[in-house]
Amino acid sequence: MNILIIGLGLIGGSMAKSLRRAGYAVDGMDRANVQVRALAEGVIAAAPQSAEGYDVVFVALPPDAAMRALDEMPFSAGAVVADLCGVKGAVERCVYAKPRRYRYVGCHPMAGKEVSGLENSCETLFDGASMIVVDHPQTDAAAIALLERLFMRMGFGCVRHCTSAEHDAKIAYTSQLAHIVSNAYVKSRTAEGFSGFTGGSFQDMTRIAGVDEEVWSRLYMLNRDAALHELDELLAHLLDTRAALASGDEDALRALLREGRLRKELLDKERKIV
Amino acid sequence: MNILIIGLGLIGGSMAKSLRRAGYAVDGMDRANVQVRALAEGVIAAAPQSAEGYDVVFVALPPDAAMRALDEMPFSAGAVVADLCGVKGAVERCVYAKPRRYRYVGCHPMAGKEVSGLENSCETLFDGASMIVVDHPQTDAAAIALLERLFMRMGFGCVRHCTSAEHDAKIAYTSQLAHIVSNAYVKSRTAEGFSGFTGGSFQDMTRIAGVDEEVWSRLYMLNRDAALHELDELLAHLLDTRAALASGDEDALRALLREGRLRKELLDKERKIV
Repeated sequence: MNILIIGLGLIGGSMAKSLRRAGYAVDGMDRANVQVRALAEGVIAAAPQSAEGYDVVFVALPPDAAMRALDEMPFSAGAVVADLCGVKGAVERCVYAKPRRYRYVGCHPMAGKEVSGLENSCETLFDGASMIVVDHPQTDAAAIALLERLFMRMGFGCVRHCTSAEHDAKIAYTSQLAHIVSNAYVKSRTAEGFSGFTGGSFQDMTRIAGVDEEVWSRLYMLNRDAALHELDELLAHLLDTRAALASGDEDALRALLREGRLRKELLDKERKIV
Repeated sequence: MNILIIGLGLIGGSMAKSLRRAGYAVDGMDRANVQVRALAEGVIAAAPQSAEGYDVVFVALPPDAAMRALDEMPFSAGAVVADLCGVKGAVERCVYAKPRRYRYVGCHPMAGKEVSGLENSCETLFDGASMIVVDHPQTDAAAIALLERLFMRMGFGCVRHCTSAEHDAKIAYTSQLAHIVSNAYVKSRTAEGFSGFTGGSFQDMTRIAGVDEEVWSRLYMLNRDAALHELDELLAHLLDTRAALASGDEDALRALLREGRLRKELLDKERKIV
C-alpha cells in the first residue's frame, strides 16, 4: 500500500510520524524547503512530484488549498483520498460537484496544538484522540474500512461517524466558537500586567487565542451559519448573566450559574458513558 | 508559632497539608464531621473550639463567613490573621470598619481546582503558584514578612503585592469572567452528543463551568462593578466578531483575529519576562 501525505504541517507531519511509528513508510509533498527537511529527518521516505500511483492520499492542507487539490490533482483511479479540513460541507460539495476517479472520504482529526508547522508535529498527537469520518451516500465502504485501520495504527482512540452537516454544526460549537471566545478574551485592557494574577482558569481560557487568522477566517466563512448560530447562543447566555449582574439580582445570578453547573455535570456524565 | 486554619475545604485543607509537608503542625476548625476526618487523616494536629491563643490564623472560608469570622471571632491581640477570599475590597472594608486587636492581611492564592472540599485538597496545590498579598496603609510589615515566609514553605512560587482595588479589577478579568464564560459556554443545545467531536479546546473552555453557585454568586455581587466592566468588554469584542461574521466580511474578521493573536503573543512575552 503506497501512502502519500500532501501538506506536512502540524497535522500532515504528525500523520507521517505516527505512521512511521507504526512501521509504514510514507511519501510526502509540500513546499521545497519543508520537503527537504521532512526527508532529512526521515519523516517521509520520498518527495514525489505527483499524486499519481498512490493507493491512499491524505490531503492535509487548509480548506481552499485542499479543495483545489481535490478538484485538480491527478489521483490514481480508485485511490482512497481523504482530506482533514475543519469544515466538511464545503469540501464535500466541491468534491461531488462532478464525478471523480478517486474514492473520497472526508475526515477531521480531533487533535491539534496552538502552534503549527512540521517543527511542531509529533508522532503522539493523535494518541487516544477521536477521528471524525463523514458519511455520504457516495462514500465507499471499503475505503472507510481501510482508513479506519490506518487511523487505529496512527494511535487514534476512536472513529466517530456523522454527516457533513452534523460535523459542521458540532465543530462550530466545540472548536470554532472556542477559538472566537479565546481570541476575544485576551483583548481586555485589564490583561496588561496580569502576571501573578492568574491560575489555571485564565490559562485555559486564553490558550488558543493566537489563531492563525488566515486559516481561521476562511474556516469561519466556510461554516458561517453554524458559527454564527453558536456565537448568538453564547451571547444570549452571557447577556442573561449580564442582566442579573447589572440589576444586582443575586437569586437570578445563582439560578443561571446553577443551570450551567447542572449542564456541565450532565456533559461530564455523557463523556464517561461513551 | 501556633497556626490555626479556619475552614478545611480545598484551600484550607491544602494549606494544612502543604504546611505539614514543610514540617509544621497546624490546628484546624470546621464542621464536626470535617474536623473528625482531618484529625483522623493527620491533616491537623488538633481541633480547637476557639481561635484564641494562635499566632497565625488563616481564614479559609467563603466571603460572607470569612467576614463574619473576621468581625466576631476573638483572635489573640497581635495575632496575624489572613483571609483567602477571591474578593478583597469588601473584606478589607469589613475589617477596617473598626479597630482590631489582630493584624489583618488580605491574601488570595492563585490556585484552585474545579472541585472543592477537604477530599480534593492536596499538599501540592500551591506549588509554583502565585500568592496575592494586599497592601493597605494599616497593614503591618512584620505580619506580611511572616506570612511570606510561610507561603514559601507551602510551595508558592511568588508573592504579588497590590491594593485591594487592583486585585479586584484583575481578578474580575482573569478569574471571575473566565467562570462566567465557561458556565455560559456549556449551555448550548449543540452540546448534546458532543462526544467524539472535541479536542483540547472544548475541554479547556468548559473545565470550570461547574461553579458552586452559592459561592460564586456572592463573589460576583461583592465585585459587581469590576465583573460587569470585564463582561461588557468581552461582549463588545464578541459583537465585533459577530458583525464581521454576519456580514460575511472576511477582511474584517481576519483583522479581528489578528488583533487577538498579536495581543496573545504580547501576553505570552510578558509572562516569560516576569
